[in-house]
Amino acid sequence: MNELRKDYLLDRWVIIASGRSKRPQLVEGQAPAGEGKKKTCFFCPGSEHTTPPEISRVSVDGQWIIRVFPNKYPALTLEEGDRVEGESYTMRPAYGSHEVIVESSRHDADLADLSVSHLMKVFDVYQERINALQEVEGIKYVLVFKNKGAEGGASLEHTHTQVTALPVVPPLVKRELEAVKKSGGCPFCEILSRELGSGRRVFEDEHVAVFTPYASRFPYEVWLMPKEHRKTLGELTGEEKESMADALKKLLTKINSGFSAYNFYMHVAPKDDDLHFHIELFPKSSRWAGFEYGSDIIINTTTPEYAAEYYREAF
Amino acid sequence: MNELRKDYLLDRWVIIASGRSKRPQLVEGQAPAGEGKKKTCFFCPGSEHTTPPEISRVSVDGQWIIRVFPNKYPALTLEEGDRVEGESYTMRPAYGSHEVIVESSRHDADLADLSVSHLMKVFDVYQERINALQEVEGIKYVLVFKNKGAEGGASLEHTHTQVTALPVVPPLVKRELEAVKKSGGCPFCEILSRELGSGRRVFEDEHVAVFTPYASRFPYEVWLMPKEHRKTLGELTGEEKESMADALKKLLTKINSGFSAYNFYMHVAPKDDDLHFHIELFPKSSRWAGFEYGSDIIINTTTPEYAAEYYREAF
Repeated sequence: MNELRKDYLLDRWVIIASGRSKRPQLVEGQAPAGEGKKKTCFFCPGSEHTTPPEISRVSVDGQWIIRVFPNKYPALTLEEGDRVEGESYTMRPAYGSHEVIVESSRHDADLADLSVSHLMKVFDVYQERINALQEVEGIKYVLVFKNKGAEGGASLEHTHTQVTALPVVPPLVKRELEAVKKSGGCPFCEILSRELGSGRRVFEDEHVAVFTPYASRFPYEVWLMPKEHRKTLGELTGEEKESMADALKKLLTKINSGFSAYNFYMHVAPKDDDLHFHIELFPKSSRWAGFEYGSDIIINTTTPEYAAEYYREAF
Repeated sequence: MNELRKDYLLDRWVIIASGRSKRPQLVEGQAPAGEGKKKTCFFCPGSEHTTPPEISRVSVDGQWIIRVFPNKYPALTLEEGDRVEGESYTMRPAYGSHEVIVESSRHDADLADLSVSHLMKVFDVYQERINALQEVEGIKYVLVFKNKGAEGGASLEHTHTQVTALPVVPPLVKRELEAVKKSGGCPFCEILSRELGSGRRVFEDEHVAVFTPYASRFPYEVWLMPKEHRKTLGELTGEEKESMADALKKLLTKINSGFSAYNFYMHVAPKDDDLHFHIELFPKSSRWAGFEYGSDIIINTTTPEYAAEYYREAF
């Protein structure tokens, strides 16, 4: 059982997940010496038996195009246990779940290479998993995120998104919720309308807003959100979902043209709470090091205003 | 002028330092294609004219063995300016300074390769810079940190430490200070005595304690601190400083035997405040990705108990 351990003094939590260090590393540039990257891909059609039992799939003409199954090396599992408060430590079991969504059967496709209608189906699968997992006893939040490329933290090359169900609202989301409560309205509604009038505006249509955030933590960080106040993907109208898929495809295509790795995650509202749904994404081009880890202040060497120019070329 | 920008909602600060992206990259594995790594090293003897004007040096027999000068691509500078609170943003100039300490004239030496007496001199230089910089008007904290290796965020191979003087107490240090105040005593004194009786104990002698922290954020994270309550390096007795240098040398030697990169930083007490001085160090073997950046919860795939075993071999 993995442990969710609290720092001695700070409200800082770490999942000690020693099993995950056994993950095979099959991303280009990370393969063990002497082994090529053309080993069997666990996520390709024909290898379905190598993954844990399938949770769901989307098929076209009898062939799956999206597939969902549990992560073989989960950071969180549904084993229950008590919170333990020792004299010098606080621990709770890393209760939850950890799933993989393979968004395409094509080994060499990235999310950016899928059609807008395919991406809309991927969004539906994200929402299905959020709906299902947030009903599980003891689950407080479902975090959907994607790591692409070795630098982005992916251990397998075949395109996939990860879904984690957590026994707590993650500290970052909690702080966003606190800020929302403090403001009395929806600060994200205000932020997006102001930023669309700034030099950080990347794109807008009737339904979605894209901009680089004022205090971007990463070079080329960019945010994508619905203009209407929607709490989650499931609240989007069909047109909004289509705009969102189209904008995401354009952003990822632009990122892939200049970078080999990216991360994104989705901040949806927790089940009985309110948060303006948004996606935060960034290519992996910088490394946090002694300064960032020792101070919690981040150095970003690319201005968001410059990054916005870069992305505007994609629209 | 670089800007220290605050997030829209969170108490999260980013230094937008676009000048730093112009840094030359001369670490092995990072050199631009077609360029070897045997270019002129800016930090080697003979290249003193290529650095900004020297601040100080330690010499033996007329040859410098430690050299201090301003960072050519500073994240912070002593340009003054006002805090600006716009409708949608908060910014203050990234006021402060950013220095480099080259701890050895030998291009191929790491800190681990220096003698204990040389390391003690390096500690003295750290303390000298902390003393000088914390007297500068508007400076609230001096953070000393070291990045080694490309993965560790170093842009130059020749061994060096960085010293940053900041216009704020960094959020991480602030939260440590808050925890200290809340506890009424020194929680670090308690933590170290308890951890030396745990499976996370690495080493102790009369003067110093070494252990892997219970909620280690990184595989093989390890902490080093004086057993007596000292607020900064300058408060160490000669024997304590020697024990500390010896333990740091052994830890870094062990890290270098298995990893190509590491980071460490020193948390000293701010000028008029109290904090048990400690050094936090870790090799660079993991990457934070979508999960960590999207949740602020960290996944660590190596247990601190296992890491303690690893380090015990070094003592």
